[in-house]
Amino acid sequence: MSEPTKQRVKPRLPRGFRDRDEADIAAERRMLDTIRRVYESYGFSALETPAFEYTDALGKFLPDSDRPNEGVFSLKDEDEQWLSLRYDLTAPLARYVAENFQNLPKPFRRYQLGQVWRNEKPGPGRYREFTQFDADTVGSASPAVDAELLMMFADSLEALGLKRGEYLIKVNSRKVLDGVLDAAEVESSKRGIALRAIDKLDRLGLDGVIALLGAGRKDASGDVTRGAGLSPRAINDIVNFTGWGEPGSSSASTVASNEVTLANFDDAVRGSAVGVSGVAELAAIKRVFEACGYGNERILIDPSIVRGLDYYTGPVFEAQLTFPVQNEDGETVVFGSVGGGGRYDDLIARFTGQTVPASGFSLGVSRLLSVLKARAGAEAFAVQPLVVVMVLDKGAIAESFRLAQELRMAGLRAEAYVGEAGMKAQLKYADKRNAAIAVIEGADERARGEVTLKDLALGAELAKSTETRAAWVKDRPAQQSVRREQLVQALRAMLASRGG
Amino acid sequence: MSEPTKQRVKPRLPRGFRDRDEADIAAERRMLDTIRRVYESYGFSALETPAFEYTDALGKFLPDSDRPNEGVFSLKDEDEQWLSLRYDLTAPLARYVAENFQNLPKPFRRYQLGQVWRNEKPGPGRYREFTQFDADTVGSASPAVDAELLMMFADSLEALGLKRGEYLIKVNSRKVLDGVLDAAEVESSKRGIALRAIDKLDRLGLDGVIALLGAGRKDASGDVTRGAGLSPRAINDIVNFTGWGEPGSSSASTVASNEVTLANFDDAVRGSAVGVSGVAELAAIKRVFEACGYGNERILIDPSIVRGLDYYTGPVFEAQLTFPVQNEDGETVVFGSVGGGGRYDDLIARFTGQTVPASGFSLGVSRLLSVLKARAGAEAFAVQPLVVVMVLDKGAIAESFRLAQELRMAGLRAEAYVGEAGMKAQLKYADKRNAAIAVIEGADERARGEVTLKDLALGAELAKSTETRAAWVKDRPAQQSVRREQLVQALRAMLASRGG
Repeated sequence: MSEPTKQRVKPRLPRGFRDRDEADIAAERRMLDTIRRVYESYGFSALETPAFEYTDALGKFLPDSDRPNEGVFSLKDEDEQWLSLRYDLTAPLARYVAENFQNLPKPFRRYQLGQVWRNEKPGPGRYREFTQFDADTVGSASPAVDAELLMMFADSLEALGLKRGEYLIKVNSRKVLDGVLDAAEVESSKRGIALRAIDKLDRLGLDGVIALLGAGRKDASGDVTRGAGLSPRAINDIVNFTGWGEPGSSSASTVASNEVTLANFDDAVRGSAVGVSGVAELAAIKRVFEACGYGNERILIDPSIVRGLDYYTGPVFEAQLTFPVQNEDGETVVFGSVGGGGRYDDLIARFTGQTVPASGFSLGVSRLLSVLKARAGAEAFAVQPLVVVMVLDKGAIAESFRLAQELRMAGLRAEAYVGEAGMKAQLKYADKRNAAIAVIEGADERARGEVTLKDLALGAELAKSTETRAAWVKDRPAQQSVRREQLVQALRAMLASRGG
Repeated sequence: MSEPTKQRVKPRLPRGFRDRDEADIAAERRMLDTIRRVYESYGFSALETPAFEYTDALGKFLPDSDRPNEGVFSLKDEDEQWLSLRYDLTAPLARYVAENFQNLPKPFRRYQLGQVWRNEKPGPGRYREFTQFDADTVGSASPAVDAELLMMFADSLEALGLKRGEYLIKVNSRKVLDGVLDAAEVESSKRGIALRAIDKLDRLGLDGVIALLGAGRKDASGDVTRGAGLSPRAINDIVNFTGWGEPGSSSASTVASNEVTLANFDDAVRGSAVGVSGVAELAAIKRVFEACGYGNERILIDPSIVRGLDYYTGPVFEAQLTFPVQNEDGETVVFGSVGGGGRYDDLIARFTGQTVPASGFSLGVSRLLSVLKARAGAEAFAVQPLVVVMVLDKGAIAESFRLAQELRMAGLRAEAYVGEAGMKAQLKYADKRNAAIAVIEGADERARGEVTLKDLALGAELAKSTETRAAWVKDRPAQQSVRREQLVQALRAMLASRGG
């Protein structure tokens, strides 16, 4: 048997990581189960890959970073090979598909849910471990692949309780954007800066984007971002294409219908071959989702969608929530993006040497969860209410446990107090557990065949306001004695009255 | 847009890790959901801690290893502090409780489900990443804590479909074992070897254990394990205590009732103070579980249970399956342990400086899952049957997707083929997906308002045997044409007939 260590260790979470409690875990589980059922109804299959991949297999596709292996947790295995914790679920999918290509059904459609790790500087709300939920289709260039992902994402949000009009699944095409840049005669070395500028419309507004397309921009702190240095004519073409309003406006002009937007796209690419093929793909995607009953009010073609990742090659997607929510500082904001994706036909080529078409959608789990909780209230995700059986009679602990067992067998969530403290500490315990009801059975009561129920939530309310006490107690007593044999029935009634 | 890399990377899983497919994931999810519901019904709360802990916080309590930090995946953070991936869920619990002690309800009862990592030599069925499912109670020395864990584990196994008699939750006490070693006058330096010897009764049989308690043992390969060097009288005392049969027997003698076992324990510890307190604790545990209706047939006091970990300080638990199963080599074996635990009152002291009583039970997720699958057959865990809508008419892709959408809205799991290949490849795809039914709607059929259903599983059976074909086709046609408006109804009927 080991001796307790003499030198004390300070217990502390590693920076950038977090512990999660029951309420958080239950809410996330319910959300993910709902989405999973939608994905499975579409025939997508679950896949799990390990936390580790060989570092060379993860490759250089770390989002928002051109520096290979930075931002990743890596260590050397005993055989001197470098291992890394996955930073997303797409790179492991590419490895999995390449490794099992012969045996997979093709097209291969999988969803994956799991933790990913980023070795980045942590900040408020910015963790180094978080959950991703991805759906991808590998092995088909058909626009139906993309249409299906868009529909599935819309269905998921509705299954989570969002109403039509509260979200928009937006789609655009990198090929169309390329076509517009072709038409505006933007040279290829400047295209990255130009695309990143368009991507910032939401945050910077039109003036900011125009500055970034031109000479550059100085932000409030005085930091200068170099611009793409485009000509005024090119800037004008691009701004017209995005469909945003006049310079100086801070929000998008009224969004056109998908029909009108596609016609505008046709004009904007002015015959650029890549642009024309991008417009044709979007038209084919639209045919599929419209045939399935999805109109502008659910899936919207939007020229301002870019998505930051370099590896997208065709359609790009983004799911946006359109209603205002309160953020953690109590401010009302439009929540914005809760997920996105697109085509990334080249990702698997690094293994196979040949281009394998692929398209995927990734969900921002913690962002979506926070908005659902803000809307529905934490109660909507609560676990089953808890009944705590107090242990008053130390000589009859076993009887209290038998009572709790009886309640569980009746389908209630119930525990007998497992500690060794007195009545006051037990009530404090029940309070900290957010228990709904305390069951009290002292030796006297047991002898009389009675048991006392205490409505803990109501008791707390009563303690707060004395004036309504009389009325409350009449309709809904905070404490009542019942016959032992009526215990389950009385508990059920008391739990039901909590709803009112 | 990035160029495909010219130098190809070999796609490969890191050694000791694995990918998991839909059937595996669905089976595990169902099993874990069932157990979770039982744990929650007992009032245990979910907790999640991060994958990483500071290495010094994980401490030296790595199971089966006295060497600090060996067996763990570790790396240095940017601030030069060492981080390690958790190797179990108990060490993070200790850190969590110590860090949040003031704010937690006490006793604190939590369950945790999650991946753990061991940096060990991988082998067949021995992975470096696996799932654990733990339940622990911290902050109470009451025997009711242990009784509750035993009951909860029994309930979990029954909720998973195990019948009474197919499993036993076994309990023993380190204090009783210490008392027996006291009574047998075994010096403390030899106790570790002696306990490890008793722990091997299952594997080595009585003769092997007697050898290990005495001079030592040479195994089949000629390797010699040093023995504890106990006197014949001490060995005899210990063997008598374990309740195993005569030397030479290879299995335990008939197990005594809990009542009788406790009486034997009282004799065996011969007044040793620690032994007597251990027997009293077991008696108190027994009073609670018996009051709740759990007898010998579910929870059994068993003197041969030791549990290998050094940190246990009182009662120790082990869940054993008692029925034979076929292992992966087709051999019939008794499956044995699927989980265990015990009291480890000293684990949190390294942070707090004071002993905090704690007790826990850890489930072997993959072991339990494999036995459930072997018993129930993989079908019992299957996901919802899949309907694949073939896309024959390239000009009418959208119509096929609308049809699949209609099926999903009727509650079926349905997809339209998203690839670009012909009919033959599509049927091969449906086959690889283990789809139940293919829906075929060519242009002609669409014009007639008809659609063809193909029972893929039945088709495969028919292809195997030609003789029964006539009979089968009569009762249950492998292919049928139905009116378009009767599609959902006909699909449901066809899916229902698969059960028969």
